[in-house]
Amino acid sequence: MTDDTKTIACLVFPGVDPLDLIGPMQALGLVGYLGSGWRTVTVGARIEAHETEGALRITPSHTFAEVPTPDVLVVPGASTPAFRAMADEHLLDYLRTAAAHAEITASVCSGSLLLGAAGLLRGRRATTHWTAFDLLAEFGAEPVRGRWVRDGRIVTAGGQSAGIDMGLYLVEQLAGTDVARLAQFAMEYDPEPPLGPLDWEQAPHEFFAPLAESWVTDGLTEKPELAARLVARLRAAAAAGQQAAVRQEVGG
Amino acid sequence: MTDDTKTIACLVFPGVDPLDLIGPMQALGLVGYLGSGWRTVTVGARIEAHETEGALRITPSHTFAEVPTPDVLVVPGASTPAFRAMADEHLLDYLRTAAAHAEITASVCSGSLLLGAAGLLRGRRATTHWTAFDLLAEFGAEPVRGRWVRDGRIVTAGGQSAGIDMGLYLVEQLAGTDVARLAQFAMEYDPEPPLGPLDWEQAPHEFFAPLAESWVTDGLTEKPELAARLVARLRAAAAAGQQAAVRQEVGG
Repeated sequence: MTDDTKTIACLVFPGVDPLDLIGPMQALGLVGYLGSGWRTVTVGARIEAHETEGALRITPSHTFAEVPTPDVLVVPGASTPAFRAMADEHLLDYLRTAAAHAEITASVCSGSLLLGAAGLLRGRRATTHWTAFDLLAEFGAEPVRGRWVRDGRIVTAGGQSAGIDMGLYLVEQLAGTDVARLAQFAMEYDPEPPLGPLDWEQAPHEFFAPLAESWVTDGLTEKPELAARLVARLRAAAAAGQQAAVRQEVGG
Repeated sequence: MTDDTKTIACLVFPGVDPLDLIGPMQALGLVGYLGSGWRTVTVGARIEAHETEGALRITPSHTFAEVPTPDVLVVPGASTPAFRAMADEHLLDYLRTAAAHAEITASVCSGSLLLGAAGLLRGRRATTHWTAFDLLAEFGAEPVRGRWVRDGRIVTAGGQSAGIDMGLYLVEQLAGTDVARLAQFAMEYDPEPPLGPLDWEQAPHEFFAPLAESWVTDGLTEKPELAARLVARLRAAAAAGQQAAVRQEVGG
């Protein structure tokens, strides 16, 4: 590694969703392997095994203090644990400091809500997991549909697997199209969802609405006022969604 | 968890590729969360932090001894570390015992070569990462192109990201189409590769051929005869591929 090696830091926090983290990390990890001039690390408050949303624990390679100002920062999300992280001022401070210096600050899934809680999305177009879409406005962002959305130095992706697409987009931005294509071949990313692409007109809003509300209320016990505002937004969206569903049923 | 809860076990070994592991694990973890009757665990020789191919360490939730006969077994791959694992008789014994009992034994990427080294692919149609495709025959398998390939109780997937598609296929098999669709929405798996789908006529065989050979030779130092046979297969495939590339250039 030369002195001018640049650093991509992927955030680990307690309860992180593994795919949110691994999707872009895997793509970005190939920038240094296939090209040059970059290294990819994971950063957490401590180098210890962190619980995750999955049946495994993840130990980051570096602490926040060791990588205070990465060149690229990637913030994954989670369900309840992402909302719990919004009360972690040490974590939010790290996001603010890192994002102030980084060429690109990116998020996956509800990771954009963490950026929002850190005050980084005010006036920005952004996206997130579809079940949390209407929460972005609470943080001053303009919610925009998209697999990933770029607004200046901020890039936000949709839910979980969207981090792979965004990761390859970032590889292209950082290292060029040829390296991005090599990374895509290395990951054999030529998707064939067995049930085909998602039919968004059939999105199961009613199934996920109570789950999304529980993620907010269970996670934000330390910030009840914010929790109440977010729940109000979820309920307004659910009511609007149910009206749309009713219209569809009547009209169809 | 009821007494008749069934177990999906995803293998962790030293140097495992994180996406190979997380892709199917994330899909399969939703079987119990969205449906019922299943739990997903990770299994390793010891409950300790394992190095991986990425900049993080992974601690499995259970030991092999704790989950000797899972109902479903998922075996991820790696580059060099997957070939190193072929000399780990404790690991291969676990694969044999578990696969003898499991309803489904699945693999991602070079994980199929681990199944092959355990003697589980003889006479079976199977696939793997495209750079390792020609190695399958060394283990008595019939190499078949496919995002995933099922032959009875054995399901093998292509490289890295193919584990997500296979994982959703397995969710459908285990819990039905409705749960698989919910899992796909939960993961927001509606891929948009930024450079589009892979153009397999442009596969960078010459770039990856020396890497693939180094994975074999660096990993299989304890089994030099097997390494020599696998390298011979890679070189024969590379020569054939280069001939094809030349023909294309002349003909085009």
